[in-house]
Amino acid sequence: MTPHPRLSLNQATIKYASLGEALDVTAAAGYASIGLWREPVQEVGLDRAARMVADSGLRVSSLCRGGFFTLPEGPQRRAALDDNRRALAEAHAVGAPALVLVAGGLPAGSRDLVGARARVVDAIGELVAEAESAGVALAIEPLHPMYASDRAVVSTLDQALDMAEPFPSTAVGVVVDTFHIWWDPRVRDAIARAGAGGRIASYQVCDWSTPLPADVLLARHYPGDGVIDFGSLTAAVEATGYSGDIEVEIFSEPIWASPYAEVAQRTSEAFSTVVAPHLTTIGRVPGDRPEAQTIGS
Amino acid sequence: MTPHPRLSLNQATIKYASLGEALDVTAAAGYASIGLWREPVQEVGLDRAARMVADSGLRVSSLCRGGFFTLPEGPQRRAALDDNRRALAEAHAVGAPALVLVAGGLPAGSRDLVGARARVVDAIGELVAEAESAGVALAIEPLHPMYASDRAVVSTLDQALDMAEPFPSTAVGVVVDTFHIWWDPRVRDAIARAGAGGRIASYQVCDWSTPLPADVLLARHYPGDGVIDFGSLTAAVEATGYSGDIEVEIFSEPIWASPYAEVAQRTSEAFSTVVAPHLTTIGRVPGDRPEAQTIGS
Repeated sequence: MTPHPRLSLNQATIKYASLGEALDVTAAAGYASIGLWREPVQEVGLDRAARMVADSGLRVSSLCRGGFFTLPEGPQRRAALDDNRRALAEAHAVGAPALVLVAGGLPAGSRDLVGARARVVDAIGELVAEAESAGVALAIEPLHPMYASDRAVVSTLDQALDMAEPFPSTAVGVVVDTFHIWWDPRVRDAIARAGAGGRIASYQVCDWSTPLPADVLLARHYPGDGVIDFGSLTAAVEATGYSGDIEVEIFSEPIWASPYAEVAQRTSEAFSTVVAPHLTTIGRVPGDRPEAQTIGS
Repeated sequence: MTPHPRLSLNQATIKYASLGEALDVTAAAGYASIGLWREPVQEVGLDRAARMVADSGLRVSSLCRGGFFTLPEGPQRRAALDDNRRALAEAHAVGAPALVLVAGGLPAGSRDLVGARARVVDAIGELVAEAESAGVALAIEPLHPMYASDRAVVSTLDQALDMAEPFPSTAVGVVVDTFHIWWDPRVRDAIARAGAGGRIASYQVCDWSTPLPADVLLARHYPGDGVIDFGSLTAAVEATGYSGDIEVEIFSEPIWASPYAEVAQRTSEAFSTVVAPHLTTIGRVPGDRPEAQTIGS
C-alpha cells in the first residue's frame, strides 16, 4: 500500500537510523515526506545532509528540535539561543518549513512556572527576525502536562497560541500533536483558533494508551493502537484548511527495536486506516519545494 | 508542632490504616480534621463509623469517593449511580460536607471522550437533588490529564466548573488539588472563577516531582518535596475567601510504608512550612459541625 501523499515519517519513529538510512527507508517505502532531527543531520554535516535530502526526492516536513528557553539570563541561556539560531540555519538548509520547539522544563531548583513561561516568550521574540529571514517557522509544541516540569512548560494549544500570536504567523506557529493535546476539553476550539490565525506549522499524530510505561516519555503508539479519536481531531484540523504534511512521530522502545522498513510500513498502514479517511485534501504536490509551504496557506 | 487548625489529613495518606487507627493517629497528632474514604468507613459499618468520628472530636473535611460516571446507560451505570447515592448518605452520616467525585475514564474500547464527559454531567444532574437533601456537596475533582483515559475524563478546573455551574453551588462544587492542576496556564483564573461562584468544595495540597514512578498513580509527594509553587496557588485560593479545611492527600508507596504517626507529623511539618505561611484566615473554629460548612461561605 502506497503511503498517503500527506504522510511524513518523523525520524524519531526510527530513532536509531542514520540520516542516510532514514532517507532510504522512507523513500523506499513510498513516502513523499520525512521529518528530520538535528543530530543525524549534524552527524553528516549540513552541506552533505542537504544534498542527501535533495537526492532522496523527499520533502522535509519539519526539523526537530529547538527550544530549551526557560533558563534565566546568563551564558547557558545565550548558548541555547545561539543553538536555536544554528537550528534555523539547518532547517533552511534541509528545506524544512518549520523548526519544532520544545520549550524546556523548570530550571533545576526552580518553582517559578510563570517566570519560566515568560522566558519562553522572550526567547521566541529574540529569534523571530532570524526565523523570518530563514523562511522557517518557529513551531511551538505544547507537550502533555505530564512533561510540564521536566520537558516543556508549554502545556496546552491555547497557551502555545497565546505565545505565538504576538508575532507574525509566517515566523511563529504551533505544532498540533494528538498525543499531547487529545485530553484537552478545549482542543477543538483551540485547533480552530490555530487554523484561523494561520498558525498550524505541523500536524503530528500518534496514540495514547494506558498503562503508561515506566518512562512516560516512551508512551506513544501507532495511530489506532490507543484511545485517541483521530476522526474528530483530524476533521478539526482539516476544517481549518491546513493542507500540509502530517507526521507520525512515535517514541516507543518496542517500535525503536523493530526493523526500520517494518516501522515505515506499519506507520503507513495505521495512518491509512485511522487518519487518511478523515482527510479531504490531497495536500501539496509531491516534490514541491518548501518555499511553497507557507503556514496556513 | 501543633498542626495548623485548617489542616486535614486525608486518610489516603495513611492508606493502610483502619478507620479507628486513622482517627486515633490524626487526633493524637493534634489535627482538628480528617478526610475519610468510604472503604474503611464501610468496614466498621455506617452507624459505628459515625459514632467513632463523633468520639474522635475531629471534623470530617470530605469523603472520598464517588463518581465513575462515564459508562453508557445500562445496569452498570445504574449500579454506579446507586452507589453514589449510598456515598451521599455515608457522607451525611459521618458529617462530611463534600463527596469527592472521580469522574471515571473512557469505557473499555471507547474513544468517545466527548460522550464520556457528557455522561458525567448527566450523572451529576441525576444526583443533585439527593446531594441537596443530604447537605453534601458533590465535589467534582479534575484529575491530571495523564489520567484522562483510565481514571477521570475531567481534566481541568475550568472543565469541572463548566460541569458544576448549571447546578446550585450548595449541591455541586469542585476540588482544587494542586497536584492535578498546578501545570495549567489558566490555574489562577480558574481558582478565582471557582471562588467567585462559591464552588470550592475542597482544597487539597501535595507536590509533583519527576521522574514519575512506574505507576503514575503514586507520583505524589509531601508539599515542598517537588516543584509546585504552593505560595501562589494557596494565595489564589485564599483570595477567593475560601476558609475551609485544607487536605493533604498523598498516594505514595514510600509514605504508605512509613509509620502512621510519622506520616501525620511529617505532613503537618510540610504544611506548616510551605502552605500555612500563605494562609490569612484561621478557618472554622475547631469543633464546628459540618452543618456550618457551606461551600463558598
